Amino acid sequence: MQRIVGHGLSISLDGFAAGPDQSHEAPLGVGGEKLHEWAFATRSMRHLHGMEGGDEDSVDDRWARRSLEGIGATIVGRNMFGPVRGAWGDSGWRGWWGDAPPFHHPVFVLTHHAREPLEMQGGTTFHFVDGADAALDSAREAAGGLDVRVAGGATTVRQFLAIGAFDELHVAIVPVLLGRGTPLFGHGLDLTEHYEVARWEAGERAHHVLLARTQRD
Amino acid sequence: MQRIVGHGLSISLDGFAAGPDQSHEAPLGVGGEKLHEWAFATRSMRHLHGMEGGDEDSVDDRWARRSLEGIGATIVGRNMFGPVRGAWGDSGWRGWWGDAPPFHHPVFVLTHHAREPLEMQGGTTFHFVDGADAALDSAREAAGGLDVRVAGGATTVRQFLAIGAFDELHVAIVPVLLGRGTPLFGHGLDLTEHYEVARWEAGERAHHVLLARTQRD
Repeated sequence: MQRIVGHGLSISLDGFAAGPDQSHEAPLGVGGEKLHEWAFATRSMRHLHGMEGGDEDSVDDRWARRSLEGIGATIVGRNMFGPVRGAWGDSGWRGWWGDAPPFHHPVFVLTHHAREPLEMQGGTTFHFVDGADAALDSAREAAGGLDVRVAGGATTVRQFLAIGAFDELHVAIVPVLLGRGTPLFGHGLDLTEHYEVARWEAGERAHHVLLARTQRD
Repeated sequence: MQRIVGHGLSISLDGFAAGPDQSHEAPLGVGGEKLHEWAFATRSMRHLHGMEGGDEDSVDDRWARRSLEGIGATIVGRNMFGPVRGAWGDSGWRGWWGDAPPFHHPVFVLTHHAREPLEMQGGTTFHFVDGADAALDSAREAAGGLDVRVAGGATTVRQFLAIGAFDELHVAIVPVLLGRGTPLFGHGLDLTEHYEVARWEAGERAHHVLLARTQRD
């Protein structure tokens, strides 16, 4: 059965999913890249990005692999796609990831500003959609029976958490402090309305927690 | 050297150190008792409270023991001492813990309302002090060279975090969701100003993180 998943969501000890002051130079906010070091130390994540090496079959690697498997379409927020604000104009922005983004399937970018689809190398096509419901409808269809992953950023994940869209969430708690940034949980978002802790496991560089939809949902 | 420590601070996955709606019936807030189950499953904590059994020399037990050793005085917020608000009057409130509280040393209760010290059984005496600085001064002296522990609640710990009072913090991340409550970190409190992650370890029922004062401090 097709699911909506939030896999590989990394947060700091103080609860931030991105650092402060996001910019072209710091797309994950200042210090935000530390949240993803655990993933880029794994073979599965490095392989996806065309990089050699990495830990194989470690706890972190198994969670990284799990976060990537069985995904037929991805949804990302506008900030995760790029730093351009307002209308697209002739910005020519084609995402943070170069000519061959590491998705290899349709990716739906949330934006109020219409834009023609962008077909990239390696099977990724960026589609531009307005609103969470439209993104979910389009991504479900495009995924062809596979799961739909809401990949980020933090504000987008919170938007889908608020409407209880996820069937499953995998959160990686990373032992760093960011001090400021965008929180993933709390701040008025009550996760107990839809989710409960299903499993957790200590990895080499992160602690992994799986949240599942509560039975009463 | 005498230190100010925040040991055994338990938070939920969504970052809360106490549940919502604290009351006489729910001193830790609704659901807040779940944050302390890891500690009460250990022999060290059970022993302190005069209870039998518990895991011995498990990872959680070692952290529980570490949180209790070498402490000569404790500081607690008014809410952690009791539900009485405003002037003490003739409330007769003597703390949540019965006649023999599990401290066995001087305990300094933050309150704007003066009150005579309360000598309890087993070596605990409650002293009532106005303000964090006064509490620190009195507790340092009373501890006689041992460490001073700021035990809670969350609002009190945040108050001491804000002034960079801690030399060391031990935070236990517990795999439960509370949804609402009192956060320990974030919400304007930038931990990176004073602290960094020194160590972390997965226990049986909680993940333990040790924060130490940064070198530049």
